[in-house]
Amino acid sequence: MSSSFGTIFKVTTFGESHCPAVGAVIDGCPPNLQLDENDIQVQLDRRRPGQSELTTKRDEADQVAILSGTERGLTLGTPIALRVENRDQRPGDYKEMADVPRPSHADFTYQAKYGIRASSGGGRSSARETIGRVAAGAIAEKFLLEQYGVEIIAWVSSVGTVDAPDPDLTTINRSLVDASDVRCPDQTAAEQLRREIIAARDADDSIGGVVTCLCRNVPAGLGEPIFDKLEAQLAHAMLSIPASKGFEIGSGFAGTRMRGSEHNDPFVWKDGRLGTSRNFSGGIQGGISNGEDILFRIAFKPAATIGQAQKTADFAGNETEFKARGRHDPCILPRAVPVVESMAALVLADMALIQASRNATSRR
Amino acid sequence: MSSSFGTIFKVTTFGESHCPAVGAVIDGCPPNLQLDENDIQVQLDRRRPGQSELTTKRDEADQVAILSGTERGLTLGTPIALRVENRDQRPGDYKEMADVPRPSHADFTYQAKYGIRASSGGGRSSARETIGRVAAGAIAEKFLLEQYGVEIIAWVSSVGTVDAPDPDLTTINRSLVDASDVRCPDQTAAEQLRREIIAARDADDSIGGVVTCLCRNVPAGLGEPIFDKLEAQLAHAMLSIPASKGFEIGSGFAGTRMRGSEHNDPFVWKDGRLGTSRNFSGGIQGGISNGEDILFRIAFKPAATIGQAQKTADFAGNETEFKARGRHDPCILPRAVPVVESMAALVLADMALIQASRNATSRR
Amino acid sequence: MSSSFGTIFKVTTFGESHCPAVGAVIDGCPPNLQLDENDIQVQLDRRRPGQSELTTKRDEADQVAILSGTERGLTLGTPIALRVENRDQRPGDYKEMADVPRPSHADFTYQAKYGIRASSGGGRSSARETIGRVAAGAIAEKFLLEQYGVEIIAWVSSVGTVDAPDPDLTTINRSLVDASDVRCPDQTAAEQLRREIIAARDADDSIGGVVTCLCRNVPAGLGEPIFDKLEAQLAHAMLSIPASKGFEIGSGFAGTRMRGSEHNDPFVWKDGRLGTSRNFSGGIQGGISNGEDILFRIAFKPAATIGQAQKTADFAGNETEFKARGRHDPCILPRAVPVVESMAALVLADMALIQASRNATSRR
Amino acid sequence: MSSSFGTIFKVTTFGESHCPAVGAVIDGCPPNLQLDENDIQVQLDRRRPGQSELTTKRDEADQVAILSGTERGLTLGTPIALRVENRDQRPGDYKEMADVPRPSHADFTYQAKYGIRASSGGGRSSARETIGRVAAGAIAEKFLLEQYGVEIIAWVSSVGTVDAPDPDLTTINRSLVDASDVRCPDQTAAEQLRREIIAARDADDSIGGVVTCLCRNVPAGLGEPIFDKLEAQLAHAMLSIPASKGFEIGSGFAGTRMRGSEHNDPFVWKDGRLGTSRNFSGGIQGGISNGEDILFRIAFKPAATIGQAQKTADFAGNETEFKARGRHDPCILPRAVPVVESMAALVLADMALIQASRNATSRR
Repeated sequence: MSSSFGTIFKVTTFGESHCPAVGAVIDGCPPNLQLDENDIQVQLDRRRPGQSELTTKRDEADQVAILSGTERGLTLGTPIALRVENRDQRPGDYKEMADVPRPSHADFTYQAKYGIRASSGGGRSSARETIGRVAAGAIAEKFLLEQYGVEIIAWVSSVGTVDAPDPDLTTINRSLVDASDVRCPDQTAAEQLRREIIAARDADDSIGGVVTCLCRNVPAGLGEPIFDKLEAQLAHAMLSIPASKGFEIGSGFAGTRMRGSEHNDPFVWKDGRLGTSRNFSGGIQGGISNGEDILFRIAFKPAATIGQAQKTADFAGNETEFKARGRHDPCILPRAVPVVESMAALVLADMALIQASRNATSRR
Repeated sequence: MSSSFGTIFKVTTFGESHCPAVGAVIDGCPPNLQLDENDIQVQLDRRRPGQSELTTKRDEADQVAILSGTERGLTLGTPIALRVENRDQRPGDYKEMADVPRPSHADFTYQAKYGIRASSGGGRSSARETIGRVAAGAIAEKFLLEQYGVEIIAWVSSVGTVDAPDPDLTTINRSLVDASDVRCPDQTAAEQLRREIIAARDADDSIGGVVTCLCRNVPAGLGEPIFDKLEAQLAHAMLSIPASKGFEIGSGFAGTRMRGSEHNDPFVWKDGRLGTSRNFSGGIQGGISNGEDILFRIAFKPAATIGQAQKTADFAGNETEFKARGRHDPCILPRAVPVVESMAALVLADMALIQASRNATSRR
Repeated sequence: MSSSFGTIFKVTTFGESHCPAVGAVIDGCPPNLQLDENDIQVQLDRRRPGQSELTTKRDEADQVAILSGTERGLTLGTPIALRVENRDQRPGDYKEMADVPRPSHADFTYQAKYGIRASSGGGRSSARETIGRVAAGAIAEKFLLEQYGVEIIAWVSSVGTVDAPDPDLTTINRSLVDASDVRCPDQTAAEQLRREIIAARDADDSIGGVVTCLCRNVPAGLGEPIFDKLEAQLAHAMLSIPASKGFEIGSGFAGTRMRGSEHNDPFVWKDGRLGTSRNFSGGIQGGISNGEDILFRIAFKPAATIGQAQKTADFAGNETEFKARGRHDPCILPRAVPVVESMAALVLADMALIQASRNATSRR
Repeated sequence: MSSSFGTIFKVTTFGESHCPAVGAVIDGCPPNLQLDENDIQVQLDRRRPGQSELTTKRDEADQVAILSGTERGLTLGTPIALRVENRDQRPGDYKEMADVPRPSHADFTYQAKYGIRASSGGGRSSARETIGRVAAGAIAEKFLLEQYGVEIIAWVSSVGTVDAPDPDLTTINRSLVDASDVRCPDQTAAEQLRREIIAARDADDSIGGVVTCLCRNVPAGLGEPIFDKLEAQLAHAMLSIPASKGFEIGSGFAGTRMRGSEHNDPFVWKDGRLGTSRNFSGGIQGGISNGEDILFRIAFKPAATIGQAQKTADFAGNETEFKARGRHDPCILPRAVPVVESMAALVLADMALIQASRNATSRR
């Protein structure tokens, strides 16, 4: 198990669905940053279940406590331990999984890998694992905003076969995103996306979709080629989120159909700096941010846990039928939005700290 | 710069386009593996330019030498240093780039990041950097094949707007891929893809495409959740390849349009093990291989370097025109195939070695 | 701040003296290991203050709670989070330190490094930080004992100018060590060492000493040359313990005075394996364990916090006098014993897991 | 095998004694540093054999070539690959080692660990491995000197039972050290140390000793507690050098015999900063440099390879006699001096780069 992420701004998360607590330890956060629980809670509240009729009805308060690393509201530069207690433990809901691995869930692979798995299902493969990421990401975001003015905004851009139009990237913000519970800033599209989700829910089914993420005001120079190119780190971060199946940056897969003469982003002087007149690069060239908007998209599959009966086999290979009980999200997209933002923040904070060292120690 | 990749099977690459040599150091390769230069050269030959009329005409022999880490054809368990000399150095071709950053290339971002860049252009952002990866990947592949029977086969599945049909995954092999110089195993489609490339070349332009990669016989249990899930590592590896813009595994972006009841892979008993009857998961569930084929796709943008004149700005922001001289690939896809395979091998070898430790030290 | 240690068996500790809690997250512990709080508490009890008249009178119960990573008394292979609450918070004791950096303590350097420090003194430089190490080390020890039969036993071998004779290495165990509260297994010497400590305490002073550590039954083959030689990792681990000033293995500094003909350890056949007839190597040759006892010594300076008045300067450089109030150990050696054992266990567990991978994947 | 060292300033070394080349790749060196082969060669010349009658007579020119990472004499911020060819290959000298593991050398442990070893003996456990370290360290030193004025000076302070007096730390420099071929700056003592070495050589034997190292002008704030305290990293670095058996910093083992009231270093205002009036701390408090001289000592055992016949056993356990042929150093101390300096430089450069990031990104 590899539960740490980052080189300088380094996060370690812990916790299963039904153990006493989940949380994270953030090591390498710069000292003297103002920080209290409220800075973190706001993103946890956007992540928690039970927010609307679109999400599971489990009501998890998910109150974060800072256990270490701050004093009088300032970071000390020492590890910041964060804990969220697991209040709502109902292992009884999961009894049927002892013998039958849930289709497209991680029961089989955890058993194959570890020779044991959390009996209550999910364990570290549960969406609950993302609490630690979001808590840590909120700190990274605060640092990035205060130090560089970086803003990170994600939203739901499609659900099932319904695509929302692109928002205006210069004005989009989290209030606009949160105006609908589906977290799509286009109000007309939001209503359609809601209907897709509700239709899936009413069919005891689930539905996938795409989250788009914008990172604004990222300074040029972030990303560590060769192997830790900025897009490679972002792809790594995004594909580590439960249920993600794809990542594309800038022109992405659509860009493969273009010619270089259409695709290349010409340089122009703008806002007192050298920029580009279009942005098929998605804000990254040669693995390094170029000062333009960073823009990427993440594919999320339909959630594996559905109320419908499914034909499958038990661990012994006998044919059987599986039907999940309990409370589950018909579509994880709305709640995935803060997780995507958090993972982006963790990548950018780490890359910013490494580049800060270079800027401070080399002649220019 | 972060030029190392992996935790146990660890690769460090080095070298610019026009310095004395490029290469790699592989640390952590298991001892007593039979290895000589031929094992490596075969993949380097598939990567090198000048192979066909589809690729740049630069003739780089790219002969690899093993500098350390083997004796009498066996690995010692010590670092294997590999060197390929840079014979074909023509910095003169690149003179126009001193003042003008090439559009969608890395000149501007390297300058922003390092305050200096290789005057001859490209440097570490050049395709030549991938030599070290391919050399290292060939060793990883050999280990995986001999230890687990793993086979890794990539091919070109689209160029521009032309998509090739999916090959038969049970019979596809590298000979079938290499039967056409475009590296598409479907001979009819291959001809169409070739025409796309040649049309772009004849227009002094470039064209993008998609590479698909299959990893066969990967044992269940590889991948280190949470942050080093197998798909996260693969995405990281693939997005670190020059010109890549996207990654998707299994159902990928298309899967976002499906419902869970269609998308979930039912378990069935097959081949003496618990498998799945379809494979939208792409061989990975919960971040861990499940024993099915691992299947993923990588988007490559059209190469940034084109012969056409482009309107752009110089470093000072003055409008100018840029026209690349020299010899360049109109489409990098055919040569990207061994790079994709190599990066997949590096990920799988590292994950296999970590899981081997767990298997050896825990009760089952 | 770098609060993580290890590559596969990886520990991250957190917590200041006066924040809500201290603890650790252990990632990479093998699954299916029997583990509950009692396995950990036993070493925490040997570490905690207030054990005897030789230690500070602060009574810290230091009760550990496992927050994650186990179920029904078995490790899941997921991160094990451990928490010990800080009950005894008396920041009032430290008020005089706001302006005056304590001599030979870390107040000045933390301020220089972070631009802020825990106002209550100590913070992460406090001995309380070692709780996380000991808790994590107890788990590593359990793994090593069950998997390989490894036993790790440390004791106090000198205090001030009084040296205890070497114990019989074949029979020494923790009961013999704990027979005296000074943790010296030679009862006569133990009494002398006690007197040294009490004399220092009665003079409002402190006294240093040496801890010796034996690791028995370590299999041959552990240690990762070049840079992670076993002795290099042990030295790193030991010099990371607060107040440590030196490390020597096998013949150590005394060995520098010998000739090779005296110092070399001849090979002999014994106990069904190739061993050595003496052990100036301290169980490690070329950075790799050779199957003999691993034996090393750690120098601990006299504790910096003493009740005596000391002439020094405040942060502004003004001459002043500093006198620590509160409750402090006159000699940290007895309590350092489990910390030394724990750090040794963390090194050996990590090295054992890496070597297990090699053994499992290479032909022999 | 773990052949990499460092987090930001990261070195990977490679090469056995008798393969085509040894060398290193340095990743993370700041860009725009003036660097050519001469900057590196000067330290390699101090390390190479055949310098005087005190060292082995093998004449290895050890000419370094920079393969990548610089252009026009400036570092590019990309990996700097360094290569030194192995000219003097005489595997024939080592034939007797096929069956008999050399006492206190690494033949047995490499075989136990890897199941194979370089037939010519030594391999990566040879002193030749240190070439990569010294080459890399020379670059780190240059960076530290130009950026911070750091000077690193090591010397031989004892050989066998003869101790040299401490030099004046304010005036000691490398010229004074190199004035004698034994590398002891006290000319009277140097003569005695030489006699110890020559006596050992004439007896076909070897002799150990101690190297002392001073790091001057190290800024306050370097070192990453908890686990990467500056002294912990230095201990790690030093104990990774072949034949080292001990490390002590500041008062070291002698300090264990002192009381806190004698040992604590009082603060005083000096040179426009807060310093200490004595330096038992060895320039490090709480794991962080305090701006005073960093001073530490490393114990080196007598070299294992001696011309005398030794009673030992072969791999099968049969008693036999072993007598090394070939050319060997009777005392490795004079040549260890640049290796110690290089490892110190690698630690300090890495710690400086991490602290530079913190200084640049936190409010003070």
